[in-house]
Amino acid sequence: MAEQYQRIRAHSESICRGLETEDYVVQPVIDVSPPKWHLGHTTWFWETFVLVPHLPDYQIFHDDFSFVFNSYYETVGKRVFRADRGNMTRPTVAEVYRYRAYVDNHLNRFFEQADLTPEHHALIELGLHHEQQHQELLITDIKYILGHNPLFPAIDMPIDELTPDYQLGSPVTLAEGIYTIGFRDAGHNRQSFCFDNELGVHKVYLTETTLAGQLVTNGEYLAFIEAGGYRNFKYWLSDGWAWVNAHQQQAPLYWHKIDGQWHQYTFDGLKNVDPALPVCHISHYEADAYARWRGLRLPTEFEWEAAAVTGSLPWGVRWEWTNSAYLPYPGFTTAEGAVGEYNGKFMSGQMVLRGASIATPAGHSRPTYRNFFQPDKQWQFKGIRLVLQ
Amino acid sequence: MAEQYQRIRAHSESICRGLETEDYVVQPVIDVSPPKWHLGHTTWFWETFVLVPHLPDYQIFHDDFSFVFNSYYETVGKRVFRADRGNMTRPTVAEVYRYRAYVDNHLNRFFEQADLTPEHHALIELGLHHEQQHQELLITDIKYILGHNPLFPAIDMPIDELTPDYQLGSPVTLAEGIYTIGFRDAGHNRQSFCFDNELGVHKVYLTETTLAGQLVTNGEYLAFIEAGGYRNFKYWLSDGWAWVNAHQQQAPLYWHKIDGQWHQYTFDGLKNVDPALPVCHISHYEADAYARWRGLRLPTEFEWEAAAVTGSLPWGVRWEWTNSAYLPYPGFTTAEGAVGEYNGKFMSGQMVLRGASIATPAGHSRPTYRNFFQPDKQWQFKGIRLVLQ
Amino acid sequence: MAEQYQRIRAHSESICRGLETEDYVVQPVIDVSPPKWHLGHTTWFWETFVLVPHLPDYQIFHDDFSFVFNSYYETVGKRVFRADRGNMTRPTVAEVYRYRAYVDNHLNRFFEQADLTPEHHALIELGLHHEQQHQELLITDIKYILGHNPLFPAIDMPIDELTPDYQLGSPVTLAEGIYTIGFRDAGHNRQSFCFDNELGVHKVYLTETTLAGQLVTNGEYLAFIEAGGYRNFKYWLSDGWAWVNAHQQQAPLYWHKIDGQWHQYTFDGLKNVDPALPVCHISHYEADAYARWRGLRLPTEFEWEAAAVTGSLPWGVRWEWTNSAYLPYPGFTTAEGAVGEYNGKFMSGQMVLRGASIATPAGHSRPTYRNFFQPDKQWQFKGIRLVLQ
Amino acid sequence: MAEQYQRIRAHSESICRGLETEDYVVQPVIDVSPPKWHLGHTTWFWETFVLVPHLPDYQIFHDDFSFVFNSYYETVGKRVFRADRGNMTRPTVAEVYRYRAYVDNHLNRFFEQADLTPEHHALIELGLHHEQQHQELLITDIKYILGHNPLFPAIDMPIDELTPDYQLGSPVTLAEGIYTIGFRDAGHNRQSFCFDNELGVHKVYLTETTLAGQLVTNGEYLAFIEAGGYRNFKYWLSDGWAWVNAHQQQAPLYWHKIDGQWHQYTFDGLKNVDPALPVCHISHYEADAYARWRGLRLPTEFEWEAAAVTGSLPWGVRWEWTNSAYLPYPGFTTAEGAVGEYNGKFMSGQMVLRGASIATPAGHSRPTYRNFFQPDKQWQFKGIRLVLQ
Repeated sequence: MAEQYQRIRAHSESICRGLETEDYVVQPVIDVSPPKWHLGHTTWFWETFVLVPHLPDYQIFHDDFSFVFNSYYETVGKRVFRADRGNMTRPTVAEVYRYRAYVDNHLNRFFEQADLTPEHHALIELGLHHEQQHQELLITDIKYILGHNPLFPAIDMPIDELTPDYQLGSPVTLAEGIYTIGFRDAGHNRQSFCFDNELGVHKVYLTETTLAGQLVTNGEYLAFIEAGGYRNFKYWLSDGWAWVNAHQQQAPLYWHKIDGQWHQYTFDGLKNVDPALPVCHISHYEADAYARWRGLRLPTEFEWEAAAVTGSLPWGVRWEWTNSAYLPYPGFTTAEGAVGEYNGKFMSGQMVLRGASIATPAGHSRPTYRNFFQPDKQWQFKGIRLVLQ
Repeated sequence: MAEQYQRIRAHSESICRGLETEDYVVQPVIDVSPPKWHLGHTTWFWETFVLVPHLPDYQIFHDDFSFVFNSYYETVGKRVFRADRGNMTRPTVAEVYRYRAYVDNHLNRFFEQADLTPEHHALIELGLHHEQQHQELLITDIKYILGHNPLFPAIDMPIDELTPDYQLGSPVTLAEGIYTIGFRDAGHNRQSFCFDNELGVHKVYLTETTLAGQLVTNGEYLAFIEAGGYRNFKYWLSDGWAWVNAHQQQAPLYWHKIDGQWHQYTFDGLKNVDPALPVCHISHYEADAYARWRGLRLPTEFEWEAAAVTGSLPWGVRWEWTNSAYLPYPGFTTAEGAVGEYNGKFMSGQMVLRGASIATPAGHSRPTYRNFFQPDKQWQFKGIRLVLQ
Repeated sequence: MAEQYQRIRAHSESICRGLETEDYVVQPVIDVSPPKWHLGHTTWFWETFVLVPHLPDYQIFHDDFSFVFNSYYETVGKRVFRADRGNMTRPTVAEVYRYRAYVDNHLNRFFEQADLTPEHHALIELGLHHEQQHQELLITDIKYILGHNPLFPAIDMPIDELTPDYQLGSPVTLAEGIYTIGFRDAGHNRQSFCFDNELGVHKVYLTETTLAGQLVTNGEYLAFIEAGGYRNFKYWLSDGWAWVNAHQQQAPLYWHKIDGQWHQYTFDGLKNVDPALPVCHISHYEADAYARWRGLRLPTEFEWEAAAVTGSLPWGVRWEWTNSAYLPYPGFTTAEGAVGEYNGKFMSGQMVLRGASIATPAGHSRPTYRNFFQPDKQWQFKGIRLVLQ
Repeated sequence: MAEQYQRIRAHSESICRGLETEDYVVQPVIDVSPPKWHLGHTTWFWETFVLVPHLPDYQIFHDDFSFVFNSYYETVGKRVFRADRGNMTRPTVAEVYRYRAYVDNHLNRFFEQADLTPEHHALIELGLHHEQQHQELLITDIKYILGHNPLFPAIDMPIDELTPDYQLGSPVTLAEGIYTIGFRDAGHNRQSFCFDNELGVHKVYLTETTLAGQLVTNGEYLAFIEAGGYRNFKYWLSDGWAWVNAHQQQAPLYWHKIDGQWHQYTFDGLKNVDPALPVCHISHYEADAYARWRGLRLPTEFEWEAAAVTGSLPWGVRWEWTNSAYLPYPGFTTAEGAVGEYNGKFMSGQMVLRGASIATPAGHSRPTYRNFFQPDKQWQFKGIRLVLQ
């Protein structure tokens, strides 16, 4: 477990290796946190939930860091308003790295203490998965920061951008009947961990459905744009149409039409849109509108999971919008204390995504994983899988 | 059908019989339309969807009324921005009543033409149910307008306020298993009509569940208030807690604490809150927070419908918040043309309510009816039914 | 004085004689108060400042009207938020007229009491001028309400619209030197009354200046529009350019280009813009931009007053924007109590207008009168007089 | 002139010597620009207005920097929206310093070319004063950035904080009569430069007035706070009272009450408020309210200038709010081209400050200097001088 800790913690820093100090600091929109904040916040999580309660004589690194790096845990006390994260120039990036080193040293000391209890194990596993969630956010937030800079800087980022030979698949048909949903045991899922929102194994009844074997491509989506998809209300949910008009949406995030040619910002800088790759950085509204334009629909999260557990659905290149609202499974309960704020309180106004993306850390995906965002958010790596019938 | 038409149309006007001319005009918040607008809009619906296409030689009443009284039908053309409905002093109330009389006369002429086709029947039935939906909105919007007036005027309103001897019931337990959801045939539902969002009969799998036999009362809800429920984040969804703080929420809508005593605005003016009656005018956030405070939860719309079709669940005194997002049933499709905008485009960001209220017109309720509102809306007659286990 | 009271009070009601009940109720923007509110507020002013303190045994008409009809007098207590005036359907228009009659009856009783003190006289004179100020606001607010209705209704309004033979004049040149500014005695000003902001007679030193003998016409202003004046930043103050862009300004208020022809809303409905008449309903930003485009400037309020007291400057058809900020004269002091809130607290962020308009009641204008509005406001009858050199 | 250029340019960098890289990047409110932006913008000014038009064969440093570092010169083309300055992490601080060095090198080459014309001289002088204006903004913006950080960091800043033995003076009385206002010749003003807004020498007529010999102190201002000055509408302009309530103002900017004791943020960190020092970082609204509470008033800019040119008024420790709006002097004209946007277009909605502060660069103050800000701005070093009678 110590080795895993060190490897995962090192990966967070590896994501930032190409950044200039300035890139760590800003928050161009409220959703996008400064990379410095992610590095500090994940460290604060270890300090607050592992070291302070479980390592005797632990001295916290800095009295004010709890205030600075708490995200949304009301249980733990006051925190900097989310909108102000990007105005805090101190602690500096160097201090945040010192904070990380200090906490890592104490965690290592903690691991060396012979006997970790099951409670310890559970807590550390949660911390590791929490760190991994922020690794994906680090990548998407860095992309947002650099992708909105008028200089469109390229950067060295340790992820594998998709190439046109990415894995494709064949459609998957689910027979009508009862399916079991939710995270079962380690044996069944080949993984020992899940978040609380995946618990509550339960049955659902599905009608016969066929899911597409591959995601909608840039080329297919371009046809929607060129057919006037963004200018015709009838493909859009009412909220989606309001969003299109309020923000003058005309294309996925990071797309720019330059001299008649569509480009998109990538970590390699501005590049031509490749029609063979899956469309990315779209909102739920756009995914839904595209499906309607095609006369089709998005899958529910239950259809997706049922298809994914069969093993024949290739997934993992993009988070996939479902048409399921993020709501509790039967029997869902929240843990006592701050950890109980992890998932449950966000079960309102968000839509479920399933799958994983090129920004998802290795080992941080599984067929039962429930990702969720408000339907207008585009900045994650999100794509479209259609239900064909 | 002509008789039904006349009766339902007359009821819309009967709801307004106690209004002063001034009460017809204003729009204190964007959700609440001026009564004058409701009377005009329902009339415009008849004119646009029945008379213009189906009554030969029909002359529209006024060229500009389509612009003024269209609500959200993008198909039909430009419309007054919703937020400006309350700034239109013309047409006057008297002109709107003349408009109603003109359209009613022509509808009567239409009915007198011998042979209504099935298409005509379907359109008229939709128009009648549309008018009934606006009757409930008329009542709730009038209550909002008068309930926010510093003089708290009483008004004669043709609804039966609940009294403490309203019908109570016993808990209903659903066995685990498969249930059928959605509007079936007239024989099964003892009704010939449903909206498109109820179609798509399908099966769901439910776990064993017991629904409370009666709604949460004012007295029970008061205990939540007095226990500091509105000041403790841990009972609230994240969006709900933001809503509580942004609006300084402390109690249901229309409640006022005067000299230490809770009062509520009713159509009879300000009255003491009666602890024996069901709590009303609460948001989904409040319903959910109350349930958490009790360690319980709200039912899903499927549990509710399954219990309601058994016949043993007494319902109809208040719309009941479920914990289901408003989403399409399997196989849901939207009709072509403007009528297709009726329900489908709102399937985002809203929660389902089931049941009916004292403001629901007679004959306008059924166990499969899906009402829906954003989770922060309080101004309908909404209450709480808990799942006991 | 009783006769004057009755005549002025009757004029307020005469302004409203063409209104429908609905027109009395709404507040389409925060600046524009419902006519009902003006009628009630002026009445409340008489009740609060004259009857309550000075008529023994006076019983106020309604306990809640002070809350409803106070405008901005913090001294007198809580009041309805300005933005909510247009949501109050009660008291009804009929009740407001009853309120007026009740207060008028008591004022008449007050006048019949033989001996009015000088303090009484001063208070009544202030009340009369206050009522006259609201008469001009009544006219401009009614114009705004009807001019923003999609039906553009015509209305009978007791003012004389300008005709092309309105009085013109010749330029007026002021010699360099010292001028006296401010309201002096009744003999000098042929009037016994002024507001506190005109007091503080003082000297100013002016350089030689020539003011235009007539106001800028619609035809002249149209040339500015057609020359792209609204699309070229260089004519505009920085705040003005922001205002043009935020509101997509393209012409004066009430102007509409229909089939290539400019129209404007008047109390007679939509009419062609007459190029011979003075331009009207423009903001300070527009007046200033027009002057710059001409390579000229607006006068200061001191230049205007100095020219006006000579008697050779024809004025009174439009309020005229000056380039003076609304600030206190030397020695300005505010009265004790609520009356002291009349003018002084608005001496920030507003520009002075001089003159009068077709909406100004007879006897309510004088060369020393200081009108004032924020520089973006267009809805008064405002025009442009240039300084020629 | 070359020596002066090098000295002034070096001072800009000297102001930033204590900053961390992170401190250069953020923009916590729209008024406060990132230090990096100031360093780049002043350099862009030299490049755009001197090097590009006047140094043959000059190659601009980077094609995109005009877009990035233009402030408000519409003439020169598109620019980054002011609110987005704080989201640009690139160019980096290091690149901005390289830009400065590049432009400095070329300026030095320009100076070495033998014959500067008078036009060159004027342009360079404007550039130097422009740089100095931004030096004061650099200091105040850095103070805002660090003063709003929850860690309240201290920083080495090359300015002399006031000590209690700062120069005091005696009241200055102006006799009634005519005074000359505006920048005259170099001999009269012991300075060769002024901004365009100081030109237009003209006469004003002043009544007898006595200006206080010293500024209002923290101790005196504290008495206003403790007397409930921030809770009583009657001391405030209407706009000021709205500002107090909207922002819950209770004290000058940077004041914090900790354990019952008032502290203020300084470049040395949080310190006790010293009652002997002049109050600072207040808005015009606060200055005006304080004066009213004392039954006194602020001077006009003309009274201030007339008193300052006598030489007996000690000034220079704080910018002093006057009660004059920022408006053109008689005969004011704007230059052609971008330089003409320097001052004139801001003559709306702002109040004049006179004097100088501890943040004003040496040689950048004179009695005719007209500084100006919106009345709600607190973040400059601003104080209060009263008119005693």
